[in-house]
Amino acid sequence: MNFRVELAERAKLVNGALEKFLPSVDAYPPSIHQAVRYSVFAGGKRLRPILVMAGAEAVGGSAESVMPAACAVELLHTYSLVHDDLPVMDNDDLRRGQPTCHKVFGEAMAILAGDALLTSCFGILAQLPQNGSISPERVIRVISELTEAAGTRGLIGGQVVDLTSEGDTVDEEILQYIHTHKTGALIRVSVRAGAILSGASGEQLHQLTGYAENLGLAFQIVDDILDVVGDEQVIGKPVGSDQRNQKATYPALFGLEASRQKAAEAAARALSSLDGFGAEAGFLRRLMHFIINRDK
Amino acid sequence: MNFRVELAERAKLVNGALEKFLPSVDAYPPSIHQAVRYSVFAGGKRLRPILVMAGAEAVGGSAESVMPAACAVELLHTYSLVHDDLPVMDNDDLRRGQPTCHKVFGEAMAILAGDALLTSCFGILAQLPQNGSISPERVIRVISELTEAAGTRGLIGGQVVDLTSEGDTVDEEILQYIHTHKTGALIRVSVRAGAILSGASGEQLHQLTGYAENLGLAFQIVDDILDVVGDEQVIGKPVGSDQRNQKATYPALFGLEASRQKAAEAAARALSSLDGFGAEAGFLRRLMHFIINRDK
Repeated sequence: MNFRVELAERAKLVNGALEKFLPSVDAYPPSIHQAVRYSVFAGGKRLRPILVMAGAEAVGGSAESVMPAACAVELLHTYSLVHDDLPVMDNDDLRRGQPTCHKVFGEAMAILAGDALLTSCFGILAQLPQNGSISPERVIRVISELTEAAGTRGLIGGQVVDLTSEGDTVDEEILQYIHTHKTGALIRVSVRAGAILSGASGEQLHQLTGYAENLGLAFQIVDDILDVVGDEQVIGKPVGSDQRNQKATYPALFGLEASRQKAAEAAARALSSLDGFGAEAGFLRRLMHFIINRDK
Repeated sequence: MNFRVELAERAKLVNGALEKFLPSVDAYPPSIHQAVRYSVFAGGKRLRPILVMAGAEAVGGSAESVMPAACAVELLHTYSLVHDDLPVMDNDDLRRGQPTCHKVFGEAMAILAGDALLTSCFGILAQLPQNGSISPERVIRVISELTEAAGTRGLIGGQVVDLTSEGDTVDEEILQYIHTHKTGALIRVSVRAGAILSGASGEQLHQLTGYAENLGLAFQIVDDILDVVGDEQVIGKPVGSDQRNQKATYPALFGLEASRQKAAEAAARALSSLDGFGAEAGFLRRLMHFIINRDK
């Protein structure tokens, strides 16, 4: 099967599950549930929930049993996008070609929708043990790791540094801090969450963490490269926006050739982290190849 | 001991614990940790954490063992205040006589500080089982109940209805919805959380829930009454502000005398919910008397 099709089918599974977890738009008070659903179903590749499922499968677990956790991670990701897009933050009017939440529902409702998404992330996780096979101990561990990844030493820390360093000259250290915290932390915990819930050994978890960290790095570098050389028609957003916004990027700091080299090295490290795994890590391997070769 | 002194001593215990749970203002990135600490230590009676401790004691548990949960609830409460005070929400410049978080740190940082507070609430709860006597099952149950109380069917739902009914004529049904969701839900879950973590029976939990619901109602009605008749010097904020803002209140809907009657009835129901408890519920009884007789 073409890997793009495989990804789309997994995203469809995630969307079906999200549909079940979110209150309907008629639930009282309707405005907040409309804003939440609008934000969640405005598109998105569902990369993070797909990584939760793949992390489970890599250690012999099933994608199905970790689906609630996969959805929880996507809700957390969506909350961070909704709040980051706000006028006082990154002030983005469009996300994936659609008007952002606050453009449609107003700023107050967008703040509350983000709050609701973050809250329901932990609500869904807390329901997990009720449905059978997953122990409360494992769920508590995942909640703990998620709060670390999402908190001031993770996602929020990354956003703070990104905001407060605006207009400054950003060096490699700051660039890496922003990337590993704003993007890397959630990618890392996604793979780990699936593996922890499926009973990964310490050694398996260690290797999968190495995979996830390098996948996250390669993903970010390729993103930066595509902003410089990508075809506007193919990637669906104006290219060169990072340069116009004087954003620190890998190509800006290191040049295109060295950035390509860094991405390839990270991908190689990610793949070698999987050496101890068999066919059950096939999806993670194909995903790494896909990300390094993507043109959008 | 004078009950006001007793309350102050409990609040001091909570403040000491919060001090330990929150990262220092030097932790990187410092701006967010400054905004978080500023918001948490800007005053406050610590009513909710005190209720967590009292809920534990009422069923034979100890205040000390539920202190992390008590702090978690206070962080959740603080997040809701920081976001509610934002210009696009209730637009308050002062809270407890101090400039609100966004007046000091800017709106972006206030949104992120609220996000960080909400995230760390669940982070602290997830640490609870590591320290010994509390089982992961009980912690998961408390996380689940807290996400309900804080979500779109609780706190957030109340804020949405409060915002969207601004300027409308608010009837008793809407007034009660806003109060039970914006204030009542968190007071209710505070008492329950302490009791659940301390192994309350189903019957104990049922009675304590009745106590908490009526305490929350009486608390709100007295608040509304004080806004009309309170001495500005004593309560520390301008009286009559609800009327000027055309806010729906109990006195506005029912008149002062009927409001006093409703508060007294709620207090009586709260106290009779404790009939099956002995001296271990003494604090909860004194608290109910204190709230109904308070002049600020």
